[in-house]
Amino acid sequence: MLNTETIVALATASGAGAIAIIRLSGKDAISIADEVFESVSKKKLSDQKTHTVHLGHIVDGLKTLDQVLVTIFKNPNSYTGENVVEISCHGSTFIQQQIIQLLLRKGAKMAEAGEFTLRAFLNGKLDLSQAEAVADLIASDNEASHQIAMQQMRGGFSNEIAKLREELLNFASLIELELDFAEEDVEFADRTAFNELITRIDFVLKRLIDSFAVGNVIKNGIPVAIVGEPNVGKSTLLNALLNDERAIVSDIAGTTRDTIEDELVIKGIEFRFIDTAGIRETSDVVESIGIQKTFEKIEQAQVVIFLFDGLKFQVSSFDYITEIEKVKNKYPLKPILVLVNKIDLLTENEISSINKQLKTLNLTLLKVSAKQKTGIDELKETLLSFVNTGALRNNESIVTNTRHYDALLKAQEEIQKVKHGLETNISSDFMAIDIRQALFYFGEITGQVTNDELLGNIFANFCIGK
Amino acid sequence: MLNTETIVALATASGAGAIAIIRLSGKDAISIADEVFESVSKKKLSDQKTHTVHLGHIVDGLKTLDQVLVTIFKNPNSYTGENVVEISCHGSTFIQQQIIQLLLRKGAKMAEAGEFTLRAFLNGKLDLSQAEAVADLIASDNEASHQIAMQQMRGGFSNEIAKLREELLNFASLIELELDFAEEDVEFADRTAFNELITRIDFVLKRLIDSFAVGNVIKNGIPVAIVGEPNVGKSTLLNALLNDERAIVSDIAGTTRDTIEDELVIKGIEFRFIDTAGIRETSDVVESIGIQKTFEKIEQAQVVIFLFDGLKFQVSSFDYITEIEKVKNKYPLKPILVLVNKIDLLTENEISSINKQLKTLNLTLLKVSAKQKTGIDELKETLLSFVNTGALRNNESIVTNTRHYDALLKAQEEIQKVKHGLETNISSDFMAIDIRQALFYFGEITGQVTNDELLGNIFANFCIGK
Repeated sequence: MLNTETIVALATASGAGAIAIIRLSGKDAISIADEVFESVSKKKLSDQKTHTVHLGHIVDGLKTLDQVLVTIFKNPNSYTGENVVEISCHGSTFIQQQIIQLLLRKGAKMAEAGEFTLRAFLNGKLDLSQAEAVADLIASDNEASHQIAMQQMRGGFSNEIAKLREELLNFASLIELELDFAEEDVEFADRTAFNELITRIDFVLKRLIDSFAVGNVIKNGIPVAIVGEPNVGKSTLLNALLNDERAIVSDIAGTTRDTIEDELVIKGIEFRFIDTAGIRETSDVVESIGIQKTFEKIEQAQVVIFLFDGLKFQVSSFDYITEIEKVKNKYPLKPILVLVNKIDLLTENEISSINKQLKTLNLTLLKVSAKQKTGIDELKETLLSFVNTGALRNNESIVTNTRHYDALLKAQEEIQKVKHGLETNISSDFMAIDIRQALFYFGEITGQVTNDELLGNIFANFCIGK
Repeated sequence: MLNTETIVALATASGAGAIAIIRLSGKDAISIADEVFESVSKKKLSDQKTHTVHLGHIVDGLKTLDQVLVTIFKNPNSYTGENVVEISCHGSTFIQQQIIQLLLRKGAKMAEAGEFTLRAFLNGKLDLSQAEAVADLIASDNEASHQIAMQQMRGGFSNEIAKLREELLNFASLIELELDFAEEDVEFADRTAFNELITRIDFVLKRLIDSFAVGNVIKNGIPVAIVGEPNVGKSTLLNALLNDERAIVSDIAGTTRDTIEDELVIKGIEFRFIDTAGIRETSDVVESIGIQKTFEKIEQAQVVIFLFDGLKFQVSSFDYITEIEKVKNKYPLKPILVLVNKIDLLTENEISSINKQLKTLNLTLLKVSAKQKTGIDELKETLLSFVNTGALRNNESIVTNTRHYDALLKAQEEIQKVKHGLETNISSDFMAIDIRQALFYFGEITGQVTNDELLGNIFANFCIGK
């Protein structure tokens, strides 16, 4: 798969900026650059040291395309591990295109999506999960996803896997050695130590697999369905929530924008609020379609908020409670938050009456005034409490990647077999097969085991230039 | 005006990309970077040589924000002439923001629009017209505007002005010396040589002033009004024209997009086609509003194309010719092109009859088949012939900037006075005043004469980060 051609692409965001970076990588990167670059110092780039920057002009025959700074990185001390040249040009799209076209004419080829990072992987500069983290890092738009991607890129997660894999590999060798001496019935692999290792691996796998729930939440956000009648104060509540955080909420190219009311990032966790109509009994056809849609949205949500107008609660408390119970019975595992709004307009007595009536539901109950912004901090904390962010706080490895999650599940299955084998004392040859299989799945994560199709799938999701 | 604070900004296009560049400039640029950068080599950036690149991490206390490459440029060998640090980080907008915010906390201040280039100018790295060319270069979206901006940035235009200014300054000194010896009636300045210089300056000024017409066209494109009835083949014609060029036409953030049919770049010159309804007599109120609008568009256009359906021409030739004559009489200086479409469907006889009828108009006449794409190359050449691109072909300086144009006009006025003074042999003291004034306007172009307001106006139009 490793390609010796020299590739080129724009590395900075597309569009016009003050400057733009065009990146070349490959055996001929420096010699191709030398063909189009006239250094002010008159020296050839190939005669310059690695990690140095040079002022000059990009020339196309007699035509000067731009005044640029050229940085060279010599193999293996570069991102890709190959010779790399970065041309920092003026950021007009016209100039970008002209320079790239010139480099293509001089023998470079257009880089494919993720090809720079693919080469870094193939040249051993990064393992596969680190390479995948590069894409996550670029896509990260909040504190938590950034932190996880950073940690993964720096090898936190794959080091853990690679270390376990190595230990397991040692035992695998010993056990396979036993097979060579099968008639003699020796045990090279200390079964107690092996048992201890398998238990440890099992423990780590469980932790990593469990972390995927958090990782997924961090990567994709938490959908929160708000069930409430019109005028109950939904938008005032959202505005109160978004008040301090609005600046942090980034433009997400959401395709489901139509159903999402708003996004809110609380301590790095993204909550997506989905508006629903409510689920009260009705004989009206149109309304019953609305109820069906509400159920669909609740189904998709990870948290459900029932929002009531405290002033109206007394009048319809029976209906409200019936509604909540219906959802609670249908989704017994889904966290439900009962939120009473407009408490600034309620008397002590009314509040305690509401408390009493809702107590029987045995659900989290919060009272707020969206208008007066009271209870908003408690609401944020309650929302956060629905997410187990312990792993994040403790800076543990968190799995965010479905591919890794799948491989971990498969590895876990094999490790369980090994564990069972140890308990039942099965013969070494069967155990060796299960261990090999577990090693295979570990290797898939770090990229020690791989194939072109897998790599193709992974890097196709990168942007061009990375 | 020169500010000693260290400034910071994103230098690459906004949005996410593989990488982004954050640029610091100022006395403390390197020491501020040292506070947040942990080099893999463990060395401080301040101990490194200029024009070198260093791998490491940006850290905010215990938190690692990103793995980055940092390039340092030491005063005066940088774009601004100050210490400059460029941080090449992963291109997520979140990371960009985090790093910039960290640098602001460490004492950098956010750069204003054009502040890097302003500093380059104030530190003598560029003259003012070169600085202005940087913005033009970034904005250039076609060959011609790129070529002019490049030439101006490399000093072609301002060198010419600066050279004339110096020669004039020499004579000014000699003439002012004469004033000191007024009683003795000596002439230090050789009047013949001075006359020769003034003639030469006058000639150059005229050429530069004339070039503004081309410069303006190149910078802003040529609006072409197409007058023609519906179904005459306007969109087929535009498609035929755009066929080969479509790839080159860039997305222009046009605010007048609603009236512009399409943009087409022919040999670096941009033509903007404006659709109009036609101007036939009518008593209908709505239609007469349409006619008024057509006249407005023709007024704004630099070229008018009358497009006819050759098949229908015979039937309404009288109306058509009346229409053309109306425009021709109203705008006698505006180039008009009469374009007959669908000639593939006409007989020889019909064509020669059309020729005969239109001949009396004494206008440029072209026959095309938009559908068969015949006559399209001739059409392009005819459009180009309306623009005097001689200066562009000869690689002469072309003035594109209104500020320069104004200063050149004023300088020309003063030079005319000097010329007249030489002819009428006026006294040296009057002549000295006119020469000083001409020197002032030359100096305004190159920035040798300047003030804060002027600089403020110029650099406010730059993007932040440049």
